[in-house]
Formats: sequence, C-alpha cells, structure tokens
Amino acid sequence: MVLEDIELKERFFSVRQTTGKICSRLSPEDHVVQPVVDVSPPKWHLGHTTWFFETFILQPYKKGYSLFNDKYGYLFNSYYESVGERVIRTNRGNLTRPTVQEVLEYRGYVNTHMSELFDAGISDKELLGLLELGIQHEQQHQELLLYDIKYILGNNPLFPIYINKPGQHSESMKSPDFLPVESGIYEVGYQASGFCFDNELGAHKVFLHDYAISDRLVTNGEYLEFINAGGYSDFRHWLSEGWEWVKAEEVIAPYHWHLVDGRWHQYSLNGGLKEVDIYAPVTHVSYFEADAYAKWKGLRLPTEFEWEIACKRHSGSHSDANFMESEHFEPVARKGSSFQMLGDVWEWTGSAYMPYPYYQAPEGAVGEYNGKFMVNQMVLRGGSCATPSDHIRVSYRNFFHPHLRWMFSGIRLAKHI
Amino acid sequence: MVLEDIELKERFFSVRQTTGKICSRLSPEDHVVQPVVDVSPPKWHLGHTTWFFETFILQPYKKGYSLFNDKYGYLFNSYYESVGERVIRTNRGNLTRPTVQEVLEYRGYVNTHMSELFDAGISDKELLGLLELGIQHEQQHQELLLYDIKYILGNNPLFPIYINKPGQHSESMKSPDFLPVESGIYEVGYQASGFCFDNELGAHKVFLHDYAISDRLVTNGEYLEFINAGGYSDFRHWLSEGWEWVKAEEVIAPYHWHLVDGRWHQYSLNGGLKEVDIYAPVTHVSYFEADAYAKWKGLRLPTEFEWEIACKRHSGSHSDANFMESEHFEPVARKGSSFQMLGDVWEWTGSAYMPYPYYQAPEGAVGEYNGKFMVNQMVLRGGSCATPSDHIRVSYRNFFHPHLRWMFSGIRLAKHI
Amino acid sequence: MVLEDIELKERFFSVRQTTGKICSRLSPEDHVVQPVVDVSPPKWHLGHTTWFFETFILQPYKKGYSLFNDKYGYLFNSYYESVGERVIRTNRGNLTRPTVQEVLEYRGYVNTHMSELFDAGISDKELLGLLELGIQHEQQHQELLLYDIKYILGNNPLFPIYINKPGQHSESMKSPDFLPVESGIYEVGYQASGFCFDNELGAHKVFLHDYAISDRLVTNGEYLEFINAGGYSDFRHWLSEGWEWVKAEEVIAPYHWHLVDGRWHQYSLNGGLKEVDIYAPVTHVSYFEADAYAKWKGLRLPTEFEWEIACKRHSGSHSDANFMESEHFEPVARKGSSFQMLGDVWEWTGSAYMPYPYYQAPEGAVGEYNGKFMVNQMVLRGGSCATPSDHIRVSYRNFFHPHLRWMFSGIRLAKHI
Amino acid sequence: MVLEDIELKERFFSVRQTTGKICSRLSPEDHVVQPVVDVSPPKWHLGHTTWFFETFILQPYKKGYSLFNDKYGYLFNSYYESVGERVIRTNRGNLTRPTVQEVLEYRGYVNTHMSELFDAGISDKELLGLLELGIQHEQQHQELLLYDIKYILGNNPLFPIYINKPGQHSESMKSPDFLPVESGIYEVGYQASGFCFDNELGAHKVFLHDYAISDRLVTNGEYLEFINAGGYSDFRHWLSEGWEWVKAEEVIAPYHWHLVDGRWHQYSLNGGLKEVDIYAPVTHVSYFEADAYAKWKGLRLPTEFEWEIACKRHSGSHSDANFMESEHFEPVARKGSSFQMLGDVWEWTGSAYMPYPYYQAPEGAVGEYNGKFMVNQMVLRGGSCATPSDHIRVSYRNFFHPHLRWMFSGIRLAKHI
Repeated sequence: MVLEDIELKERFFSVRQTTGKICSRLSPEDHVVQPVVDVSPPKWHLGHTTWFFETFILQPYKKGYSLFNDKYGYLFNSYYESVGERVIRTNRGNLTRPTVQEVLEYRGYVNTHMSELFDAGISDKELLGLLELGIQHEQQHQELLLYDIKYILGNNPLFPIYINKPGQHSESMKSPDFLPVESGIYEVGYQASGFCFDNELGAHKVFLHDYAISDRLVTNGEYLEFINAGGYSDFRHWLSEGWEWVKAEEVIAPYHWHLVDGRWHQYSLNGGLKEVDIYAPVTHVSYFEADAYAKWKGLRLPTEFEWEIACKRHSGSHSDANFMESEHFEPVARKGSSFQMLGDVWEWTGSAYMPYPYYQAPEGAVGEYNGKFMVNQMVLRGGSCATPSDHIRVSYRNFFHPHLRWMFSGIRLAKHI
Repeated sequence: MVLEDIELKERFFSVRQTTGKICSRLSPEDHVVQPVVDVSPPKWHLGHTTWFFETFILQPYKKGYSLFNDKYGYLFNSYYESVGERVIRTNRGNLTRPTVQEVLEYRGYVNTHMSELFDAGISDKELLGLLELGIQHEQQHQELLLYDIKYILGNNPLFPIYINKPGQHSESMKSPDFLPVESGIYEVGYQASGFCFDNELGAHKVFLHDYAISDRLVTNGEYLEFINAGGYSDFRHWLSEGWEWVKAEEVIAPYHWHLVDGRWHQYSLNGGLKEVDIYAPVTHVSYFEADAYAKWKGLRLPTEFEWEIACKRHSGSHSDANFMESEHFEPVARKGSSFQMLGDVWEWTGSAYMPYPYYQAPEGAVGEYNGKFMVNQMVLRGGSCATPSDHIRVSYRNFFHPHLRWMFSGIRLAKHI
Repeated sequence: MVLEDIELKERFFSVRQTTGKICSRLSPEDHVVQPVVDVSPPKWHLGHTTWFFETFILQPYKKGYSLFNDKYGYLFNSYYESVGERVIRTNRGNLTRPTVQEVLEYRGYVNTHMSELFDAGISDKELLGLLELGIQHEQQHQELLLYDIKYILGNNPLFPIYINKPGQHSESMKSPDFLPVESGIYEVGYQASGFCFDNELGAHKVFLHDYAISDRLVTNGEYLEFINAGGYSDFRHWLSEGWEWVKAEEVIAPYHWHLVDGRWHQYSLNGGLKEVDIYAPVTHVSYFEADAYAKWKGLRLPTEFEWEIACKRHSGSHSDANFMESEHFEPVARKGSSFQMLGDVWEWTGSAYMPYPYYQAPEGAVGEYNGKFMVNQMVLRGGSCATPSDHIRVSYRNFFHPHLRWMFSGIRLAKHI
Repeated sequence: MVLEDIELKERFFSVRQTTGKICSRLSPEDHVVQPVVDVSPPKWHLGHTTWFFETFILQPYKKGYSLFNDKYGYLFNSYYESVGERVIRTNRGNLTRPTVQEVLEYRGYVNTHMSELFDAGISDKELLGLLELGIQHEQQHQELLLYDIKYILGNNPLFPIYINKPGQHSESMKSPDFLPVESGIYEVGYQASGFCFDNELGAHKVFLHDYAISDRLVTNGEYLEFINAGGYSDFRHWLSEGWEWVKAEEVIAPYHWHLVDGRWHQYSLNGGLKEVDIYAPVTHVSYFEADAYAKWKGLRLPTEFEWEIACKRHSGSHSDANFMESEHFEPVARKGSSFQMLGDVWEWTGSAYMPYPYYQAPEGAVGEYNGKFMVNQMVLRGGSCATPSDHIRVSYRNFFHPHLRWMFSGIRLAKHI
C-alpha cells in the first residue's frame, strides 16, 4: 500500500467519521422525519452516502462483495434514474425502518469492506475517480445534513439546542468598500489538477465590463433596514415570481427568524433561539430576497464570473474562517480589510445555472450528478459555515432554486462603474 | 379509599400500562412519523392521552399541580378548539422532540400525580365522569395506535413484524345464514347505567321493516370473487364518489393487500406479510367497497338500527373472541353457529352518522368529543381485534369517512324479506 | 293521436320553450363559461337536455333517426358512465364550439323529430316513462340553469341585471310559530300514481317522536343577528368540517351577499345588486351554516320525515307562491298564518341522503339518476323560486353536499317538545 | 399635423385594425374562455390593449378625457401592480360581460379619442415613447392572441377551422449545414436608433468561442425520429425537471399533435387537423423538448449571443417569409441556401433570461414590462409566423418558462467546433 493510498484511506475514514459525528448529537427520533420535500431525514443521508460506495465501488470493484441488504438500494437511492427505481422523495420521511442503529451497522459493514479494498491497493484510475467522487459526495451531504437538521430542530416549538459553543460576537462593523475590477477578457473555470465537479470544468474566456464588488457580506443589521422600510410589502423591489412567493408564503423576514416580544430572534444550531446579531452576515435568504434587497439599495448581485474574478484577485486567506470544522455552524461578523469571501454563507449570484461552453456530462450514472439540474436554478459561490473546508474552491458552482433558503445563503453586492 | 376508588385506580393504571405495552414493541423511530393526515405518530398518542388527564383532571382538580412542560398543551392537544391553539394536524409528523423517552417521563409524572389524586379519595361526580371519559378516551387511542402502527409498518418496504403469535388458521367456513327480524317498533340506544358516549344516549324508538341479516362476516375468499369478477373496474357497482375514489387512488384490493408473484398477500401486525386467509373476515375495506360488494351480491348493508336489534337478539357470547387483549391483532375465521358479531372487525352500516333525536352535546370542551363530527361520516358497529374488550358495547357508534380503511373495518350483509 | 298524447306533446313543448326562454335573456358569451366545477355553462344545459331526448328516446324509438352530430354525445353527456366516455366536468367551460346558435339548431332538430314521434302516437309504456323522465329532467336543469346563471352574473364585477320585475317588498314579519306534531308511526314516501323519482318510492313507515316545526322560514334579518353576534367566528356553533370550510373559504355571510359601504347587499337575478330585504327568507346558505344557525338558536333542523309529515298536515295552498313561472327568481317575505312550505327556498333537513328501505335503482343508464349519489349529501325539501311549479312534491327529495350554497337554499327550524 | 404624426397615426390605426381582424374570424363564444392560466380570453386581449392606451396615454395626456367605464381598469389590467388591483389571472375566463360587442365599442371610443389626440399634434417626447410602446404592446398581444386562439380551438373536439389558405407544401428538404463562427469578442444588443424594448438595450461585448450553427430549423420529420426512437421514455436525454414534466403531463409529442389511426396529425390554424408535414419546422415544443432533442442528437442549442451573431452574419432577407401578414399561421418548409432565421418559429436558445450588464428598468408602471420576469425563463430568438413583420428584430429577446409550448416555438441546433 503506497503513501497515496494510505492518505486516501485516511481521508475516506476521516470524512466518514465526520458524518457520524454530525449525527451523533441527534436523538434517534431526529433522524427520521422529512418536514418538507427539500429536507431529507438525517437517517437517509447516512444510508445514501453509504449506498453510493456500495453501489459504485464495492459492487463493481470488490470481488465477492455481497449486499448488506438488497432492499437498501431502493431505500437509499436518490435521483439516479439509471440505477433503479428510486424512492419517491416525499416518502422518505415515512420510513421508520431500518432504524438508526441498523443504518449505522450498514455504515460499519461498508466501511469494513472499503478498508479491505484500500488495503488490497488501488490502481484503477476510474476507481480512484469514483472514490474521490464518493468522498466529495459525502462531504456535500454533510452540509445538507446540517441544513436539514437546522430545519428539523428549528421548526420544533421547543427549539432544541444542537451545539453550544462560546459565540463570536462583534461590537461593530466597518462600512463596505467596493473593490473595482476593470473590463477585459478573463479566464474562468477550474484550471488546476485536483478534484473538481464536472460543472466547473472547461476553463474558458469571458468578457467582463468594469464593475466593483463589496468587500464584505450584507449584515443582519443592514437587512433589518430593508425589513423596517417595508421591503416585503412593496412589489416594486421584487421579481414577479418573487412577489408571488412573498404573498403565498407570507414571508416577512429571513428563514429561521422569529419575532419574540417585538425583537427579532434567529434560530441557530449553536445556542438555539437567540437575538439577531446585527453585525453578522444575513443568512437564510432566497434569491428573490437577495435580488430585492440589492434593487432596494440601487445595486445588484455580481454574476458568477464577476464573483470568481474578484475572488481570485482580492481574496484574503481563509485559514481563520468559521468553517464546518470549527463547529459554530453560524456565520459570524468579520472585520478584516481584505476581501473575505469564503466560508460564512453561500453567496447568491445573478447568474442562472447553465452549462459552461465545453460542458460534457460524464458517462453513466455519475453523469446525472450535475448536468440534469441545469435549468431554473441560480448559482451560488463561496462556501458556508457548514461546508467542509477542503470542499471550498473559487471555481465551485453551487446552485439552488430561487425560492429556497433553508441553506446558509447570503448576499454580496456589486455595481457597474 | 373505598373499594370503588381502588377499582377505578386499578383500571386507570391497567389501561395506562396497556398503552405503554402497545408501544413497547416499537423502535423510537417508529414513534415519530405521520405518513398521511389520518395517521398520528405513536408518540403523539402517548402524549395526547396523558395531556387529557393533565388538562381536564389534574389542572382543575389537583391543588398545586404544576404542568410537566407548558408547551406540551400545544403539542399534544388534538381537536379541542376550546382549550387552546391546536397543532395543525399535518405537522404532527415533524415533531422529533420531545423524544419518546421524554414523553414516557411525562406519562410517569402524570401517573404519579393521578395516583396521589386517587389516594386522596374522589367523590366529586363530575370528576368521576371525567376520569371515566379519560380512561375510555385512552382506550380509543389504543385502537387508533394499532391502526396507525399497522399503517406505518405496513407501508415500509421491509414489512417489519410487530408481533408473532401462533396463528388461528381455519380450513373451511360455513355458508352464511340470514337471521330474520320481523317489522315493528324497537328501542335503540344505550339504556344501562354504566359508561357510554354522548352519541349513544337518548334511547328512543325506531320502526324497522322485516329484514334478515347474515350470521357471519364476508370472508376474504368471498371478497376475492368480487375482485376476480372485475368488481373494481365496473362503475355500475359503485357510488359516484366511490368510483372517483377507485380511479383516483387506483384501488384494486383492500388496504394492506399486496399481489406477490400472482398471489394475494396481506400485511398483518401478527407475522408481517403473509398469504391471504380465505376463511378469515375481509378487513381494511372502505364504505365504498363494502357498499359496492353488497350491490354486486344483490344485497345491502344493514342500517345501524337493524344491526343493533339483530345483535341484541342473536348475539352469542363474545368471551372467546379474538380481542385486543389476545394480541393477535387480526380478524380470524370463526365457525360457531350463533350470530358472532363483536370483536373481529368494525362493520360498516348503511347509516350516516347523525345525532339521535334527543342528542345533546355536553357543555365545555368535552362537548366537542362527538357531536361536531356528525356529517359526511358513516356508522360502524361492533368492535375489532384492536378494540379493548370492555370497550365493546351493542350501542357503540363508531364512525369514519366513507373512503377510509386503515382501520379494521369489514362487511356484514343484510336484505329485506 | 289521443288526448293524452296531445297533452304530453304540449307539455313537452312547453317545457322545451321555457328552457329557451330562460336562456333568451343571456348574451352568447354568458352561455360559455364554467366558473367553478359545480356550475355548468348554460350552453351545456341546452345541449345536455336535448341529448337526453336524442339518446334515450329518438335513437332507440324513432326508426331511421340520424344523429344531428355524432360528437355531441361526447360533449353533452353528463355523468352517465354507461352511455359512453363523458366530458371531464371541469372542461365543459372551455368548449366555445358548438356556438349557442348551433346548439339552438340542435334543439330545433330534436324537437322536430320529437314532434313526429308524438304525432305517430306513443303506446310503449317504457317510452312513456322515458318521456316523462326527460321532461322532468329538463325541468331540473331549468332550475340548475337559474342557479348557474346567477353564479355567472353574480360573480361579474359589473353585476349585470338578468330581469327587472317590480319587487315584492314587505314592511314587517310575524314571529314564527312552532306547530306541534305528536309521536307515532307515520307513512312517508310517494304514494300517488303520478310521476316521481326513484328515490321517493317505497312508501314506508317511520316512527317520529314529539316535535314542533316553525311555520315560516328564517329571515335575512334573523340571520343577520347571527352574523352580528359573531356567529362566523365562534367554532362552537359549527360542525368540525363546517368550521374548516368557514376558515378555508373565509366565509362571513351567505353567498351572493356583499358589504357595500357598511350595508349588506345581495345580488339578485331580479334587479341585480340591492340591499338585503330583512323580512325575506335567507337563502344561499350551506348546510353548515343552516346547522350552525340552528345550534346558535338552541334549536335544530327538522329531519326529512318530520318535514314531510308536518307539510302534509299543516301546509297551506301554494297557488299564489313565487314560483319560477312568476319570474321573480328570489324568495320573498310571506305573512300568511298557515304553514307555508313550498316554493321560496329549498330547506335543509337534518337527514343524510340515503336510500329508503325498499329502494331499488332502475335498470340501465337511467338507474344512475339518483342512487349513485347516496353518500355525503344532505336532503333538502320543499322547492324554490326557481323550481317549476309542477315539479314540487311533498315527497320530493332534493340533495346537495353540505358545503354547497349556490342554489336557493334556506332554513326552517324545529325542536323536540 | 406633420408627416411623422400622420405616419404614426396610420400605423396606430393599422395595428388596431389588425387586432380586430384577427378576432373577426371568431364567434362571440370563442372570445370568452380561459382554458389554462397561460391562455387569456381573446376578449381580454381586445380590452387590455385598449386599456393600455386609455390608461397611459388618454388619461394623462388628453384633456377632459373621461373613462369609457371606470370598472374596465380593473377588468383589463394585467400585471401592472402599480396601476391598481389586478384581476386574478385565473378568473379572466369567467367574465362573460362586458360582451364582445361592448368591448368593440370600447375600442371604438378609445380609437376616436386617440384620433383626436393625433390630430391635435404630438410633440411631447415621453408621449411619443408611450405611443410607440402601446403599438408594440398591441403587436405582442396580436401574437399571443393567435397562440391563445389556437389553444382554444385546438382543444375543442370539433377542431374548428380558423382560416383556410392554400398550403405551402414541400416535397423534400435539404440536409442542414452548420455555419461556422470563429471565437472572439462580439458586440450584442440593440444598437440602432429605432424602437426596441428595454431588455435589448445596453449594447455590450461578449466573448464567444468557436461554434457552428445550423442553417435551418429542425423539421417535423427529424423530430419524429426522436419520438420513434423512444425519446420521450428515456430519462437520459432530459433535464431532471423536464423528465418530471414529461411524466406528470404524460407528454409524448409536441403540443397540438394527435395520433389518428396510427398517423401523427397536427392541429393548425390554417386548415384544422391535418397530417404532419415532415419537411416543415417542428413547432409547439417546450425548452425541455428542444434540449432533450439536441442532447439526443449529440448537439446543443445555441446561446442567445451565438444566435444573434450568426444571424447578423448569415441571415438572408426575410422579405418572402411566411409572417403573420400572409395569414398562413403555420411554419412552412423552406429550402433556400442562406441562413433563414426569422419568421417561422421562435427558437429556443440555451440562455436563461437575465438582464444585460447595463440593464436599467424604466421608471413607473412601464418599468414592470420586462425586468420583473428575469428569472426562471429561457430566451427565444427570431420570430414566428404569428409575429407582425415589423416586430422582428435580430436583437429581440422573447422569453418563456421552459415547460411552455402553446406558442410557435422551435429548434435550431449548434455545436462547438
């Protein structure tokens, strides 16, 4: 077993353990429910990430491997149409069995077999690619797990506390500076040799016009001004579909915000319900809200390419950022002078999620990973306090429907100059 | 403490323990979900029956009683509009907290206080009435618990086994005999001095015309003939709303039936998925199905009064019946010669659920118990294998919407003579 | 051609002309739309009643008859599953063709052939029965036409006037008297030799307990007291499903009522929008509202049998009533001393619509006429200002779902004595 | 009155007459219905385009102008939130009044006042801009009118014929050639001095990579190959939301296609139901279908900028095209050798509808014209057989949701080179 294999194996087990750790703070009951269609039960995430390794790695590549349970493929598949009949997503929340304990046994069983696979030495290049994809896939689900856990606990009238770490509270916040970028042809997309997703590939040129981009995120305090100015009741700020959404859902504030005795509170994984920190970045806003806020300010969101180029040019180190590993699980106020871009919230851009010019979906089931979602979604860039730190890349293209906001999403402003 | 108090206390604790026993066969995960609006999570039943004693007995009648948790009133209320804002029913299935363990602690806390209340002696008549109602109420929820557990487990692709008791299988079944009742004025409704629900009260006269009623339930085998004759695809047998329901829900057999390799199986709490017993009574049929079957046979369902009078006249003892206490939780084939009426399945009648002539809803919150449901539902009579045996009465009026069938419902035929 | 045939032919043409007259006050545009599923386009009524004669009479009984248009069977069928694929009801409102003019030509064509059939002499008994049924069927649709026209015009912001007849306004109203009926066995159902629907047949005995029934309908003024007392916002008066309906539909008054500058107005076919006449009978109330009002008064609705027996005993002549023929199309205040029962509004009873003991659905397609609707509906008795006067019978059983109220429905109170 | 005014006046009346002509082939009944939310009743288009002139021109600019009917503002407004409460879109189809005749009188009244306004001479620049916008707006509605009329008539089982012109049938079709465009910076957006919409403004640079684009549209015959190859039942070709749409709507062919006796027919405004012309361009396809077809061919759709640049470079004259004025109302086979781009069908591009870099919504109500729809829609370029010919521009950005296809939409393929 060569060094590279050992490192890969270590990374595999480290990621697998992190998933377990995220769920270890839950009761068995917390693992089961699916309150809305976009939220999956934590138990399902535990099983699904394991199923991925079983289906795409152990079954084809480990001789004599026998399935832990032949019904799990049906239960833990997600959207992979080519692998078999999937569970209808809205029904995931009814499956009380297998129990959490049984799913953990499933995880152990697959881990054991994966360990044996590593120990036998891995040279097949396609297999290495799938292993890397499986690890990245599980990291993506770690982030989703935290969103979903926050949704489940944050919708419980008891507001259970997930973790309790000493907070990072700030007493002030500097004014935003707008960093300029001059017009010209720029190169975008992933250009290094490590791992990236298919949707980042095909580095290519874009022409950008002069613009400037804020060196910090919009804060809760700034967003409160929008609320207090009646932003949610004036159609002029909103996209037509956004306005329909505001009225239909009776939206009056970011998700997880609650007005308690006249003061705005926010449910946080860290510490439960607590008063809104006006200097921290606003989060849990939809694209509709981000766009409306920007219009109200007379500004706009950056495109994904403006964001990427500005990030490459101005970004400070993110070594001290509040990533998933620090386990605060909330964005915090930052006062540094450089362009802090990565690691508090995913930032809505003004770009629809479409394929890059040379985009090519991979062959087979993994080809369904990204390309089939390229319609009706908007790109978010950056990374959040729930993103594993080695999962953050300047070329990373996250994407969500414009009405969604149960993830850690936020706002950075831009303008033409 | 007088003998009557001791008996009441014993009965209280016996009923409370039975509820716990029903749930003791579940995993914590099984307690949480609400797969459809009519099914409540087992945890909710555990909490709700406890909340009933806390709210209507301990709070008003036990000096210095302090609530276990003042948010539980909100979480475990059901439809009592007069007691406070209720949880929207469809959200019950998202509440992962309190955990099962916490709800059991809640049960223990209330039991302890109830015990003290009993020991102090109870003479207040209204309190005695409420105690009786609370016990009956919990027994009703025991039955619902079993329906809901069956729904939850029976919709899981793993078909988990709830209990495994040696079955009562029959090798044959006698032909049904039709017992005649001659026309005349009959007295119906509850006439004894024990407990009954408000909807049974106001004994009164009805005129019945000559009729005859089957001495046994329709069997699975007989119902299979209807299926095999294309009963589900011929609109002529069906009420108009029934036919819409058949088409919209794509109904082709009773609920919990599954066609496996060309043979009909049935999910049972006792033993899981197993082949349909053609001599056992058919169950999990809706009113629409019961009515269509009867029409297909050229017969009809009895009215609730025909049923009641026939039962009073012809019923054998039900001492050996397969009630909830025997823990088989499935209707079984019976071959006795007398009119076996009570204890396998609730029997759909041809009577809409309407108030008796002298019906009077009680004052206060308990007045919402029955009267407000008197529209769009049909009466079922008898009792089922999930009914506590001291909860079965000849005058008992159960009621469900005509499309529902997750309960143990069945068919008895009648005709004019 | 014998006298009887001549009379039947005259009646046929008289009824056919009345239908045309009802529609003659409409624009072509008014004939087309279906604003809600329960309302059919007037054009459809014109075609459907014609289709009935073509399908059940001309096709089987007139030699060499050729269809006017072989697609009309598809377009103008209603719920007759046995005759062919029906138009999905919610799509009726999209069919702009055939035009009104073409449908009137269809009516003329069928009338001509019917005339020839009459002139050839009719002796076949079944044919005579079908003719009678076709005439009655068209009269039923005349009434529905008026409901639907009122719905279509009454939901137009321009509130178009359908007819303008001098009103019958009253300056006062006597207090209601409660007419007593003593307990005993009574005979109900149709007992004469003329025409009646299958659901009235099978005269039979019922036992009634002592009761009393109001000699007049509840007035708008009395109902306003319920509104002003907060009746629509106190759940205690309402059936559970009624309360859900009130909240979901935001009901605050009878249908067609509008609050204009603080005063309640009512859209009427006669005269359009005008102030509510407090002495006229309240109309356009659902069963939920009728039941809630009665409970609020501490009274109840009569059962259909109490209504029928009281009507037989106490009813005055209805020769001067405000029937459809008088073309006022609104209920009016009446002050006579006798039991005025028939002809202003259909009166909700406390009886679910179920088959009589000896009910037998006729063979064939006409067997679908009544029996298949016998679930989830309530019986209304009497007749309304939109009912053809020879269509009113003391044994007539009208029926609607409990939430419906676009028809002329009203309230009469009863009580036990 | 100077020449320019006379020309504007003439153009105004010419456009107004064309609208009337489009509707003159309808019955009054055809004007009223709204079969689905995206389709508006023709009567509403007639009123709405008139309301536009009344509200934005006559009211502010014509002294002493009095409204034709003050309720029409409410009835004929569309989505202009800033002008007043709008009619809920789904209710447009219930408004039988005003009648078509009354709406035509409304049109005449407004035309008369517009004529007076013209004759008085127009110098105000803002007014001139609004006049131009009103004319363009009415032309847009002419196209929508034709879509909606086709939907209304094409969903009628009688398949009424709208117009009957001698067809342009082709006996063959050349293979497509792919015209190359080399990479570089290109200028896009409207650059001339005439009228254009706000969303075309802000000419700007884009960088395009080498690509090639087909010189003709995909034909019905080519699309049939996709159908026959099982394209609608293989998820691999489809975007995830497209696949959901195919399954939910049970899509198996373009809209208005019907399989009659095993052969594909197409409902056409010109001639009604007739066999599919395999050499004519495919139309009535959604973006999902266009994208799936392109993927199945191993190609892709052009972006809107690739389209625009290729069109500027390669387009032949469109003087002989089958535009709205020729009144064939269907795309036809064309065999010329140049790049025929404009005038048969709107061509789906692979670009989401987003603002151009310097986009600025105009002030006031007209600011709602385009900008608020910039999410979740795809851009279509070109123009169709229902587009007025002076309404076709190379920079014109049409946009629809990706699932819509009742408009004349089609497919042009592109690829990287």
